[in-house]
Amino acid sequence: MAHEYEYARAALTVDIVVFALDENDLQVMLIERDLDPFAGQWALPGGFVHETETLDSAARRELEEETGLKEIFLEQLYTFGAMDRDPRERVVTVAYFALVNLEGHDVRASTDARNAAWFSVDELPSLAFDHDTIMDAALERLRGKVRYQPIGFELLPSKFALRELQHMYEVILDRKLDKRNFRKKILSMDILIELDEIEKDVAHRAAKLYRFDKNKYDRKTRKGFNFEL
Amino acid sequence: MAHEYEYARAALTVDIVVFALDENDLQVMLIERDLDPFAGQWALPGGFVHETETLDSAARRELEEETGLKEIFLEQLYTFGAMDRDPRERVVTVAYFALVNLEGHDVRASTDARNAAWFSVDELPSLAFDHDTIMDAALERLRGKVRYQPIGFELLPSKFALRELQHMYEVILDRKLDKRNFRKKILSMDILIELDEIEKDVAHRAAKLYRFDKNKYDRKTRKGFNFEL
Repeated sequence: MAHEYEYARAALTVDIVVFALDENDLQVMLIERDLDPFAGQWALPGGFVHETETLDSAARRELEEETGLKEIFLEQLYTFGAMDRDPRERVVTVAYFALVNLEGHDVRASTDARNAAWFSVDELPSLAFDHDTIMDAALERLRGKVRYQPIGFELLPSKFALRELQHMYEVILDRKLDKRNFRKKILSMDILIELDEIEKDVAHRAAKLYRFDKNKYDRKTRKGFNFEL
Repeated sequence: MAHEYEYARAALTVDIVVFALDENDLQVMLIERDLDPFAGQWALPGGFVHETETLDSAARRELEEETGLKEIFLEQLYTFGAMDRDPRERVVTVAYFALVNLEGHDVRASTDARNAAWFSVDELPSLAFDHDTIMDAALERLRGKVRYQPIGFELLPSKFALRELQHMYEVILDRKLDKRNFRKKILSMDILIELDEIEKDVAHRAAKLYRFDKNKYDRKTRKGFNFEL
């Protein structure tokens, strides 16, 4: 059944920038488009918002359909509505960014027919639509936000060494941090639980493992605590 | 001419939370609705996005049409797409927040037939649609953002006393700041220009006036400077 309106209406989509961390780089998941426009080019996972779902639901559904990822950190980023961002007609897209710990999720196994792959943010291909712009906005948001909210933990396994935590910040902020200062600062925040465990199967000396104490963090922030790296 | 689509499409609107500062409070501009739904209730200024304008353009146009305000600080806040936020049909709204210095803009003179008024954020009426939720999000964003970006200056006249600057932060953050610490911290950032002028027509002792040095701030941030209050 067709739907008729007095004025033209833009189509509404969601697009998701999924970040993950490997040993070296910040990674982002892209989908190779099989249909025009931009057939054969890489793009962000995403698609049309259905009539019966919220924007968040649409983002979660598309993410699972196209990458197999579910139950991961997802946050609305920005809405892009330039007139010419889709060559077919006017499409307004609500962009999201997601953070995933690769150790906890099997990504490749769940992707269907379409080709999905991880790319280093330093070696991205040119993306379809205005997805380069969306990617830049997501990177800027992530780099800004890790400095004053503990969202970076979403990229790490639940148990991590301080070295891994520092590496995460170095990769996202794109600069070296002083090891002693970093440890002093992060430990002084008193939001980590020191576990009675050390790393397993590592080539270097096994380090002590920690866990992020979300409850403690939440209690502290209610009292005006400031997570500032 | 009617427009026909295979699937139902949501209508797209913009809504704007306009903040200003008076001697005592953080203020927000509301419009009294003259039509149903919610006739007679207060709501955020806003309206439908036209086919031929970007989201930002729509927000600026609606702001000027409904409040007379133009050329003010405007930033996209968040997009709200709950299924039932409009009783008529599905409407997705891109919310913005704006900051205005009341001394530089004549607001009341420019509003047309509809009743527009400033309200203290501490004494808001119950708003139409999901505008209470949008208001909460805008307040949270403003309170978060003034701590690490110098956007608060948009609420002040271009020349201000340090007392006014402190008052602005106290009103937004909703807590008293220590005068000596505040001055020390803000001056040590070296982003204010001390003017060769003092306040005029004040009952108390006239204080020295300052101006925000945006160029200096921009140069500093490029080098990794951190505005953290």
